[in-house]
Amino acid sequence: MGGDLGPRATVRGAAGAALQDPRLALRLFGPRARLEREIASLPRRLAAAGSRMEVVDAPGEIAPGLRPSEALRHGGDSSMARMLDCLAAGEACAAISAGNTGALMALGRRALGTVAGIPRPAISTAIPTREQGRCYLLDLGANVEASAERLVDFARMGEVMARRVDGIARPRVALLNVGVEGTKGTASVRQADARLREIPGLDYRGYVEGDGIFAGAADVVVCDGFVGNAVLKASEGLARMLVARVQQTFEAHWGSRLVGLAARPALRRLRAELDPVRYNGASLLGLAGIVVKSHGGADAEGFRYAVLRAVQEVEHDLPRSLARELGGKDATISRRAGTAGDDDSQ
Amino acid sequence: MGGDLGPRATVRGAAGAALQDPRLALRLFGPRARLEREIASLPRRLAAAGSRMEVVDAPGEIAPGLRPSEALRHGGDSSMARMLDCLAAGEACAAISAGNTGALMALGRRALGTVAGIPRPAISTAIPTREQGRCYLLDLGANVEASAERLVDFARMGEVMARRVDGIARPRVALLNVGVEGTKGTASVRQADARLREIPGLDYRGYVEGDGIFAGAADVVVCDGFVGNAVLKASEGLARMLVARVQQTFEAHWGSRLVGLAARPALRRLRAELDPVRYNGASLLGLAGIVVKSHGGADAEGFRYAVLRAVQEVEHDLPRSLARELGGKDATISRRAGTAGDDDSQ
Repeated sequence: MGGDLGPRATVRGAAGAALQDPRLALRLFGPRARLEREIASLPRRLAAAGSRMEVVDAPGEIAPGLRPSEALRHGGDSSMARMLDCLAAGEACAAISAGNTGALMALGRRALGTVAGIPRPAISTAIPTREQGRCYLLDLGANVEASAERLVDFARMGEVMARRVDGIARPRVALLNVGVEGTKGTASVRQADARLREIPGLDYRGYVEGDGIFAGAADVVVCDGFVGNAVLKASEGLARMLVARVQQTFEAHWGSRLVGLAARPALRRLRAELDPVRYNGASLLGLAGIVVKSHGGADAEGFRYAVLRAVQEVEHDLPRSLARELGGKDATISRRAGTAGDDDSQ
Repeated sequence: MGGDLGPRATVRGAAGAALQDPRLALRLFGPRARLEREIASLPRRLAAAGSRMEVVDAPGEIAPGLRPSEALRHGGDSSMARMLDCLAAGEACAAISAGNTGALMALGRRALGTVAGIPRPAISTAIPTREQGRCYLLDLGANVEASAERLVDFARMGEVMARRVDGIARPRVALLNVGVEGTKGTASVRQADARLREIPGLDYRGYVEGDGIFAGAADVVVCDGFVGNAVLKASEGLARMLVARVQQTFEAHWGSRLVGLAARPALRRLRAELDPVRYNGASLLGLAGIVVKSHGGADAEGFRYAVLRAVQEVEHDLPRSLARELGGKDATISRRAGTAGDDDSQ
């Protein structure tokens, strides 16, 4: 039910993903009548996916502004919580939502626990970089402050994700900082830097500055959730502004006729390319289950990407990889009551 | 002497500014022979400015990676320190540098002191926003952490700058946060929010998220220097990546001939518009003197903007306005030994 565009975008996006991947069977949580109406009114090219979509009636909703603590107290019957219970019960491989991120994280921790004793899961998405590359940025807002220990957790989780899911043999890991010299940054960043240098086998590259993210300086860039959130959202805002300027520039200088004839398809492609942060699901990394957050402003296309992102993580059994690699040989995926560290600042 | 492109860019940029503003008289600090060579080899269109540029021989340099503490100990004879001494002695109205920012701030505090008892100056630049607007973002890296009190100082300084220098009658001020709800963010951001609400006459708009910066949601957006630096540099990196993609897209889809005939001027204009964060000087706000930092990667054009930015601040006597408005009626610009709070994490 989540997302700024409502269930139409999520249902159509889910249908698009189902058509693209014939293995998918989808269970949709929300008010039955509303969802069935959306399925019945799928455009013709998506209609065939309707038969692979099952509706679970869950009329309770998590409001966009609801605090995580409130969601934990009163959200047990919401469509979001019902979806996560289904995942926790092993009836699904992954859960995808475009709803309230803080609530999704809090309810996800309670339903699923975390892997390998990770106390604070993180949110990560792939940022497009030069040369058609990608870079995982984390945390994006689950932890507005992060100690050195947490930054090290984020780095290790991101590294496992880049290696396992994207098949990068030796992902390059970096810490976001205000300069590349060793004396720069906060105490927690400098301590995390010292610890990361000591982890055997980790291709740790030290500090990168903000422009290094898009320059492709690393495959995984780590920061606290306040910084990551600000960087991600500012990037979205800048991309949107620049798209508008590109359009204005070409309309002003080349005339609307030429733009009409030749430029529209190119401009449409550009718009998708220039607003790329919107077109990736964000992984809730460290949960003992696969949960992907779709951008709240995403259209059907954005939600389709989020579903396919979840499929990728299922294919590579990401939570098990995280549990094995971060928890040592004996680690299993452990269920934890995830309320201890919860707060509403996320 | 500073900047990635060396003194050629600064000398040509300074000459460009001098031609544009006939009131300007410029004193250039650096190795005499090098600077005189650059002045002698000014392109014809800039050559007339040479007679308004005086060279002060100052062969000592501040290296780009030098720590602020090192600059304070050993940089007293550098071209940067000599320039700031000249400003402190009242022989100049403003100082402009493309060199080491941390050193400029540390040496600037020692030479000039701060206004109105401001313990921590901040760095601010104007970010372009939609609808041809601008937004001052601060701090950009002088303070990697900032208490609520410091965030309030930054907000008040930014507000005075937007009102006095840009003539905005009631600048809208906002705090950067990870969400707009009151429960979001770090303790210092939430405390600063509470204090800003109590300042009479301040048009405080509460929280904005990262995309609000470019959307023009406020005239002044306040954050700590770690966040501001990450946001600014990530925006630069994204803008550069998108410029490259725009160019590729049009070359691929419209063919090089059409691009050659019609698109090049438009693309050139776009490149300047899309990389706008580079084309503003950054103000060292709170110093008892006007010091503008030009982007280290700026070309002559970027340095010209930085000089003209300094001129604007001189015209509106920004330090005196800050002293008067932030310090109450009796406040004067007070010289302070600025070493107490200096550290190398900036």
